[in-house]
Amino acid sequence: VSGFGVFTGAGGAARVGWRDRDAVVDLSALGDVFEQPSLNALMALGRDVWNEATAAARSHDGPRVPLDGVTLHLPFEVADYVDFYSSLEHATNMGRLFRPDADPLLPNWRSLPVGYHGRAGTVAVSGTDVVRPRGQIKLPDADAPVYAPSRRLDLELELGFVVGVPSTLGEPVPPERFADHVFGVVLVNDWSARDIQAWEYVPLGPFLGKSFLTSVSAWVTPLVLLEEHRVEAPPQDPPALPHLAGGRDWALDVVLEVELNGSIVSEGNARSLYWTMPQQLAHVTSNGATLRTGDLMASGTISGATRGTEGSLIELTRNGADPLRLPDGSERAFLEDGDEVVLRGRAGSLELGEVRGRVRS
Amino acid sequence: VSGFGVFTGAGGAARVGWRDRDAVVDLSALGDVFEQPSLNALMALGRDVWNEATAAARSHDGPRVPLDGVTLHLPFEVADYVDFYSSLEHATNMGRLFRPDADPLLPNWRSLPVGYHGRAGTVAVSGTDVVRPRGQIKLPDADAPVYAPSRRLDLELELGFVVGVPSTLGEPVPPERFADHVFGVVLVNDWSARDIQAWEYVPLGPFLGKSFLTSVSAWVTPLVLLEEHRVEAPPQDPPALPHLAGGRDWALDVVLEVELNGSIVSEGNARSLYWTMPQQLAHVTSNGATLRTGDLMASGTISGATRGTEGSLIELTRNGADPLRLPDGSERAFLEDGDEVVLRGRAGSLELGEVRGRVRS
Repeated sequence: VSGFGVFTGAGGAARVGWRDRDAVVDLSALGDVFEQPSLNALMALGRDVWNEATAAARSHDGPRVPLDGVTLHLPFEVADYVDFYSSLEHATNMGRLFRPDADPLLPNWRSLPVGYHGRAGTVAVSGTDVVRPRGQIKLPDADAPVYAPSRRLDLELELGFVVGVPSTLGEPVPPERFADHVFGVVLVNDWSARDIQAWEYVPLGPFLGKSFLTSVSAWVTPLVLLEEHRVEAPPQDPPALPHLAGGRDWALDVVLEVELNGSIVSEGNARSLYWTMPQQLAHVTSNGATLRTGDLMASGTISGATRGTEGSLIELTRNGADPLRLPDGSERAFLEDGDEVVLRGRAGSLELGEVRGRVRS
Repeated sequence: VSGFGVFTGAGGAARVGWRDRDAVVDLSALGDVFEQPSLNALMALGRDVWNEATAAARSHDGPRVPLDGVTLHLPFEVADYVDFYSSLEHATNMGRLFRPDADPLLPNWRSLPVGYHGRAGTVAVSGTDVVRPRGQIKLPDADAPVYAPSRRLDLELELGFVVGVPSTLGEPVPPERFADHVFGVVLVNDWSARDIQAWEYVPLGPFLGKSFLTSVSAWVTPLVLLEEHRVEAPPQDPPALPHLAGGRDWALDVVLEVELNGSIVSEGNARSLYWTMPQQLAHVTSNGATLRTGDLMASGTISGATRGTEGSLIELTRNGADPLRLPDGSERAFLEDGDEVVLRGRAGSLELGEVRGRVRS
């Protein structure tokens, strides 16, 4: 794993470190912006500084602290959190499940990267326990909802990016300026309570079915390290409108996997996403809205076209009808208390930080 | 007008002040938390301190700066911004406009305060210009959307509250604890581009049709000053589930008005809201999500039951079919460049801070 993060060693204050194999390299001697409890000060400084900092971090001869001797923190203060819906296969799978008699894609889906704002205050670092949320649930045969623990708790495998350089109110950022604004990427698990979400989401979208927790990796991989893993995104039909047409050369060849209680239950690749990160960024600003340092934007669940590449349990198990069989003989339609989920990603020999979480009541 | 705000006088640093008629009372001599560019430090200290601070501010003999000699700032750093849909009359009006052949209220509406997360980074102080947003718009007779300036720019009259004291992950806050967590209220104009919203909002809710700007008053009225204006909310049918059943004694008898280019075009009252602020707060935390200092939660458009009490142009003009006639002889279906909107609210002799904004291209 390579990337910037924030850690506390024995007795010290939280500071910026660089992950290198099983150790954290203490970067605090490199300057003030590394003696901080978040990456935000570094992230605000722009692309030239980020590239210098990445080079310096990789060759830095600072103190190395074994990973098992540190506490890892949320690496950046989240400004706004946006969650997209950018995988054609995921959107199609979900449409088939919920609207079996209609076109699975809604009319706007191919024209813009559909997205919504999530709760920034409940974004947490990998390793944070997932407390099973309670919420209003209306069972199919009931007249009224009950307030009860979710019975359909799910994971969502996503790739996110983090904004470093802000933008100006009223001035859209074109896709071509992506790398001037974006500091790096993280893996994201957008935990979802499907039963809460199903009852609440019309007409204003997902809310409490998502807002109880969103987990991100402890390490932010700087964009410059992903340059050699850029590929062309799959063709778009119809072509995007001109203000969203760029940034198609920013698909990332990142292999993804979902591990559940020690078993790999899904393997996919982020390169299949229909809408790329530069297009997502351009869309968010296309109405003149500003970017701030710390804005987190996640892809939405990444699912492939074949069985076993889906990025959520609701898709992997066909809405629970075809449960996963785990090596211990148990079955899973959705997550049970005690289950542990780990998301991993790698591009060639470059590993992204994992996202780990255990469910408890 | 009475309330806490943040201002800069001639040459000084931004600091906390108390609005008193046409002047701002400089509170910086009262302590460190008043020598800050936001109210967040004060807001984090809790109800006893807020009440002492309010009493101290009202009687403080500090420097008085004429209002026309100061710059007013966004009074608090917004953590998460949640927008509700709590007016029965508004939800009914919107349902009739968009689903004329169906029940105007969706099945969940009477069971929970429907809401969604908005963009915290574009919440701005009263007086900020409204730059007409561009966005994807699909005209009724067109096959495909275009990217163009909104033609259906609207206002939304709302009442918001601001969280001071955070809560703990996994621990819902019951309605009865409302006044322990909430610092005060503001007026909110949730500017909306109806054409952008109509195309984008399925299935994940409003996004760019709202995120270009949300304006709040420069003055936060502390909750304690509203105590004497509390009334019982209208009955709920069916009764709310037990976790949302409290807080019905927190409807606010606040008279509201919308001024457009100097004419009053709507007059209403916040007491008609179906879901109260304590119920909104309880709902947000009912899945275990945390509150943070600076969380802003707005009511959604407040509309009354009779003609002329609607809190948005789309309702006042029946989706543009029945335009407003202004004293200068012009008509308005939606907002035009140069239009100025002012929202005002008052409870007895207590005035809330106004929210003012002028539209430009």
